[in-house]
Amino acid sequence: MPETDEIEARLTAMGLSLHAPLQAPPGMRLPFAFVRVRGDRAYISGHGPTHPDGVLAGPFGRVGAEVTVEQGYEAARLTALTILSSLKRELGSLDRVTAWLRVFGMVNSAPGFSQQPAVINGFSDLILELYGQERGQHARSAVGMAGLPLNLPVEIEAEVEIAP
Amino acid sequence: MPETDEIEARLTAMGLSLHAPLQAPPGMRLPFAFVRVRGDRAYISGHGPTHPDGVLAGPFGRVGAEVTVEQGYEAARLTALTILSSLKRELGSLDRVTAWLRVFGMVNSAPGFSQQPAVINGFSDLILELYGQERGQHARSAVGMAGLPLNLPVEIEAEVEIAP
Amino acid sequence: MPETDEIEARLTAMGLSLHAPLQAPPGMRLPFAFVRVRGDRAYISGHGPTHPDGVLAGPFGRVGAEVTVEQGYEAARLTALTILSSLKRELGSLDRVTAWLRVFGMVNSAPGFSQQPAVINGFSDLILELYGQERGQHARSAVGMAGLPLNLPVEIEAEVEIAP
Repeated sequence: MPETDEIEARLTAMGLSLHAPLQAPPGMRLPFAFVRVRGDRAYISGHGPTHPDGVLAGPFGRVGAEVTVEQGYEAARLTALTILSSLKRELGSLDRVTAWLRVFGMVNSAPGFSQQPAVINGFSDLILELYGQERGQHARSAVGMAGLPLNLPVEIEAEVEIAP
Repeated sequence: MPETDEIEARLTAMGLSLHAPLQAPPGMRLPFAFVRVRGDRAYISGHGPTHPDGVLAGPFGRVGAEVTVEQGYEAARLTALTILSSLKRELGSLDRVTAWLRVFGMVNSAPGFSQQPAVINGFSDLILELYGQERGQHARSAVGMAGLPLNLPVEIEAEVEIAP
Repeated sequence: MPETDEIEARLTAMGLSLHAPLQAPPGMRLPFAFVRVRGDRAYISGHGPTHPDGVLAGPFGRVGAEVTVEQGYEAARLTALTILSSLKRELGSLDRVTAWLRVFGMVNSAPGFSQQPAVINGFSDLILELYGQERGQHARSAVGMAGLPLNLPVEIEAEVEIAP
């Protein structure tokens, strides 16, 4: 009998699906865990947007220059899917996340760009839609970086509380 | 009978007061919690400096260009007041903070600017003065960002331990 | 009888040694704890690379401009030694670290530089070599900053689980 998986069912109902593991470009070495679990906490590494097959998703570059705010919003939403996919692989079920705690949203920013919150809302909106206000609520920063790996427009790290 | 509120009394004695909630500019959507409480932890979102009425406080721009180090120090001190105000609203009393743990101080930095610690000291000095060395002590980073929301000169996020 | 200190013995066997406390440049005020311990957690402040005598180690500047990726890798490896030295002073023994949890790797980045992971690998590689996959594994971000204190090429903050 399949385990109830409420969050994943909600994802499917929204027409979304989880992504395959990141296909790091040749020569790129990532000697760390995408999700580090300890007790009732899962620490989530910085993730970027991927396609469903795990290939990093463009457009690449700085928001405010090569990438628009709307494209940045979509990249942040895709990053949420990428993170949920890592959590599913590590935890077995997305329902084990009992509370989102901290979200650190990093936006590759052109000089003078100052709309980082409008970009990272793509992440927060999806997490809140999936988990609801009580479980999905989170503390957040949305800030401008001078560069991100592989010219990703967005990278997000987070911390969540999990059921044992 | 009023509850003892030692920290707030100390603030008042210093001639300082808590601020009204952030008045976000029209059209800015912030779908997250300024403080996320879970168990004995409060996760504090990135905050910027505000005036007592909750309006964001200038000067705006990059420290090392439009904003001086001294102005940046004042902005970091105001950001401490803004964070304390959010904590008061969420926790009921600032005395519930039993230990400051982690402070991440972000300075909107002009190219070549490298005095981020002198800026974020405006935050650390006030927290240590209010809470003392034992409760107020914290791990800290003070680093340079390529941009911050609304061209804030400083944004600070933090994590504290709280009494239930 | 000396306490077993497995990790430090491994360091010595690798020809490495712990460093003296940071000698902050004259006039630089750092009113915070390099390591903040609370319960089973140690929060580690942003650290940069130092020489064994505690003096900050160059080269200084932005990776991708004044500093090469290889030099950045070495700076991240030195930063690991600096952090281990702070942990040793605070905890008494490096063996008290039961799990690395979160590593936030900040690279002072020239415009367009996007190989931050290759730099921060200098940190992760040493921690994993010393602590092994189970204890040393960590969630990580490796991202580009617009500036760092004193033009450090790398600054790293972290969180670890410790034995009481």
